[in-house]
Amino acid sequence: MEQWKSITDCEAFAALKRCAQSPLDLTEPGNLNPERLLHFRCSGPEFDLLYGCQRVTSEVLDLLQTLTDECRVVEQFREMRRGTVMNCIHGWPSEERQVLHTACRDLFSGVPACPSATKQAGKELAKLKIFLSDVDNGVICNERGESFVNLIHVGIGGSDLGPRSIYEALHAYGKKGRQVYFISNVDPDDAAAVLDGLDLSRTLVLVVSKSGTTLETLSNEILVREALREAGLDAAKHCLAVTGESSPMDNPKRYLRSFHMYDYIGGRFSSTSMVGAVMLGFALGYDQVMEFLEGAAMMDEAAEEENIRSNLPLLLALLGIWNHNFLGMSSLAVLPYSQALHRFAAHLQQCDMESNGKSVQRNGEDLTLQSGPVVWGEPGTNGQHAFYQLLHQGTEKVAIEFIGFRLCQRGRDMEIHGTRSQQKLVANLLAQSLALAIGKNDENPNMRFPGNHANSLLMGERLTAKSMGALLALYEAKVVFQGFCWNVNSFDQEGVQLGKILAGRILSAMKGEGEEGTLEKAVLKAAEME
Amino acid sequence: MEQWKSITDCEAFAALKRCAQSPLDLTEPGNLNPERLLHFRCSGPEFDLLYGCQRVTSEVLDLLQTLTDECRVVEQFREMRRGTVMNCIHGWPSEERQVLHTACRDLFSGVPACPSATKQAGKELAKLKIFLSDVDNGVICNERGESFVNLIHVGIGGSDLGPRSIYEALHAYGKKGRQVYFISNVDPDDAAAVLDGLDLSRTLVLVVSKSGTTLETLSNEILVREALREAGLDAAKHCLAVTGESSPMDNPKRYLRSFHMYDYIGGRFSSTSMVGAVMLGFALGYDQVMEFLEGAAMMDEAAEEENIRSNLPLLLALLGIWNHNFLGMSSLAVLPYSQALHRFAAHLQQCDMESNGKSVQRNGEDLTLQSGPVVWGEPGTNGQHAFYQLLHQGTEKVAIEFIGFRLCQRGRDMEIHGTRSQQKLVANLLAQSLALAIGKNDENPNMRFPGNHANSLLMGERLTAKSMGALLALYEAKVVFQGFCWNVNSFDQEGVQLGKILAGRILSAMKGEGEEGTLEKAVLKAAEME
Repeated sequence: MEQWKSITDCEAFAALKRCAQSPLDLTEPGNLNPERLLHFRCSGPEFDLLYGCQRVTSEVLDLLQTLTDECRVVEQFREMRRGTVMNCIHGWPSEERQVLHTACRDLFSGVPACPSATKQAGKELAKLKIFLSDVDNGVICNERGESFVNLIHVGIGGSDLGPRSIYEALHAYGKKGRQVYFISNVDPDDAAAVLDGLDLSRTLVLVVSKSGTTLETLSNEILVREALREAGLDAAKHCLAVTGESSPMDNPKRYLRSFHMYDYIGGRFSSTSMVGAVMLGFALGYDQVMEFLEGAAMMDEAAEEENIRSNLPLLLALLGIWNHNFLGMSSLAVLPYSQALHRFAAHLQQCDMESNGKSVQRNGEDLTLQSGPVVWGEPGTNGQHAFYQLLHQGTEKVAIEFIGFRLCQRGRDMEIHGTRSQQKLVANLLAQSLALAIGKNDENPNMRFPGNHANSLLMGERLTAKSMGALLALYEAKVVFQGFCWNVNSFDQEGVQLGKILAGRILSAMKGEGEEGTLEKAVLKAAEME
Repeated sequence: MEQWKSITDCEAFAALKRCAQSPLDLTEPGNLNPERLLHFRCSGPEFDLLYGCQRVTSEVLDLLQTLTDECRVVEQFREMRRGTVMNCIHGWPSEERQVLHTACRDLFSGVPACPSATKQAGKELAKLKIFLSDVDNGVICNERGESFVNLIHVGIGGSDLGPRSIYEALHAYGKKGRQVYFISNVDPDDAAAVLDGLDLSRTLVLVVSKSGTTLETLSNEILVREALREAGLDAAKHCLAVTGESSPMDNPKRYLRSFHMYDYIGGRFSSTSMVGAVMLGFALGYDQVMEFLEGAAMMDEAAEEENIRSNLPLLLALLGIWNHNFLGMSSLAVLPYSQALHRFAAHLQQCDMESNGKSVQRNGEDLTLQSGPVVWGEPGTNGQHAFYQLLHQGTEKVAIEFIGFRLCQRGRDMEIHGTRSQQKLVANLLAQSLALAIGKNDENPNMRFPGNHANSLLMGERLTAKSMGALLALYEAKVVFQGFCWNVNSFDQEGVQLGKILAGRILSAMKGEGEEGTLEKAVLKAAEME
């Protein structure tokens, strides 16, 4: 524990600062040559990272390796996977928990890093397998003996964004006739829009909350149970739960089946636990869930490699730190050239920004450098027709991570003017990566492209359950590695507490009031209360 | 024209710089008092802006007013609406166009600011009214005499993001039985996912491209036409077009109906033209389209007010400039507490970042200050469980614009523990605004909230067609005002050109090649070509 330190405490930090004063100029003729593109490439499970368009040299990479070694970044990752308490702030009251989301998928090597946690995961998976088989075979069915074809997933934050983005990503492989809907927001229109016209008699309702006390989720559960009641249905025969053992929701009388998650799994890292697996199992089948977990497990294994040049998530983490802390880019755009990944950035916003949007080190001292950046993104080519103008010619410096695949998911494609749409997609991806790097001069100042916009390209063969698992685990590990470098606790979220407290007070002020005037009164009341 | 200048050329600029050295401290007890909350409030069409939680004083507002007057910001807006050529760079070849999206909705005062353009808009609306009536009455129907119940909207960028976000926002008011689908990405999976299982015989296909040459849209049109052919349908009886007069798509033989847009309407400002109106008319009916246009027209009128304290879009623009250029916030989060607005930030990313992500002034000189920020956002309360941690306790400085409504859209709500979900939603909105502003001290460093996070609150009664129109026009005008302040041309997008050129070259290299090895070869080829 005494060995946790920030990169600012490392000798290599100052050397990197010096390198950052004149970083590699990608617009210089010859700098971005074929050899560089072939050399700055890292292969990992399911993906290759092409990072020739990052502003790094071999010297910078060597220094980043030294930084990593001095901070024992990989060693900390290994300790995390083996059950060391990593969710803590030394010297202050904190959550004091293990961080073992990786144990949920550590099922394939025969020698799990943390056997006890993987055993618990295996037990829940076995329950899930039986449940899914019962749904398939009609052992579990509705009051009229009909099969369930819909599932409403009720959750928010970590119980929503990850599962939802993965569902969207893998929808192409869904079991015929099955549909999944999501309700998350306490905005009553969110639930109303889903419930409108849905045949509830053929619908399972999966309520997901680790604590069993999440305001939004409980409110939406009550709204949905009321709708079931109005439809003349017995909610206990339609509702499923994913929650912590002995949480207020852990009540078999109210749910057809309950699945457990454990307090060593943070919400934003919970997609490979039952939080994601139950819904995915319903939509895709159990085998696809196992493929998904295997992809994630492969990436976790690969993340234990010490050499940054052959550890994909670690390299991505360090390139991010180089761009953010040394080259001064304040935000990160993650741009998938895959429409199926259209919600992946929304998941990353939680996974990354909630983990590393911190200002305090793990020893309680203030940070002396920038921690997590703002993360955002939309799929290409759509973004090309939207915000890419700013990336190319704006005044903000944005780091860019492209994601792409050689092949499409559904295989429905046509050759038009000599190329297929998938080729057009990939051609645009490559073109943007190059254009951002090399820029272009022009006599007309409005047609100049300064270039030197650092970007990398994560390429996979095809977006499948396995590669989705690998992609998810890649970004999880990246975030964890960056947290270790900044020496922040990436696993708590104290920053959500103040808003909760004030919301409770304002709600008390509203209670029993009519609609008129409520807003002003509540604002003033809350302001006076401080 | 000689009077166009940047805020950096104004005397008030230096005075504001001085004010920014010690901006108002919102965490100081007493500073954020009820009087301030009531006083820092601006009423406009359909919305009030509560900006007490911005770090501005009366002195700062006075200086911002001076800045605005010196730059003739409102006068330029008036000139724009009346047809002055604003899309240009003096001294260099540029688009040299008028900017008249406002004319599309200037139908309600009897004295339009630019009569000729409004007349053209009126003509297209009249065509639309007849078309919609024909669809309703079965005059337009499919080969078997059945009504059309689906519409696929094919477009990208400005022909997609605005219409899509407005459709989502107003879906609650949709005509029973009618569904709209969107295809935008050249990723073939985007079209395949929409076409999968859709009854094309009951489907209209609306192809939207001003130039009639957009790669993605033409590719997707061909994919959809092929699907119609495979289904034994005559594409010419299912396809509609929105395009510029005499564009390659302006061909009545290929389309059941064509609607026109004009070159004085930029893609990202085109939602109130036929680009948005045809799809919205199909989904909601003509009357709702007119409500939508009226809301936008009301905001345009209000934007001509000279006093920044009573001009809602101008005030929002100037608060943005204060935060971005003077207080150093590099990104803007737009956070609607309304699930129906879940795609509004994606539209704003184009409207704002493509307009003002520029580095060259309108006289061809380099900018000497930051222009448009990165814009991003997701709905609350969802975001509270995701990235708000970074907003409260992170190291990045983010400006925040909240959007909320007193009432929900669908009226399906329940009282749970003494309050309805809509009240919980609004309570959370108010709580976040306050929490970000006032912060909280604590002995435990990990539980400290620094506060002083500037934010404003845009409150409406309910999200309707009219308020959606007002909201859209509010942000359009805000972006235009900011562009005037920075003295950039907000109406071109030269930054998209380089990527297009390189994509074309890479595609040529790919042509005729198989799937294997294509990627590497193409990268190398494109790199060598530079």
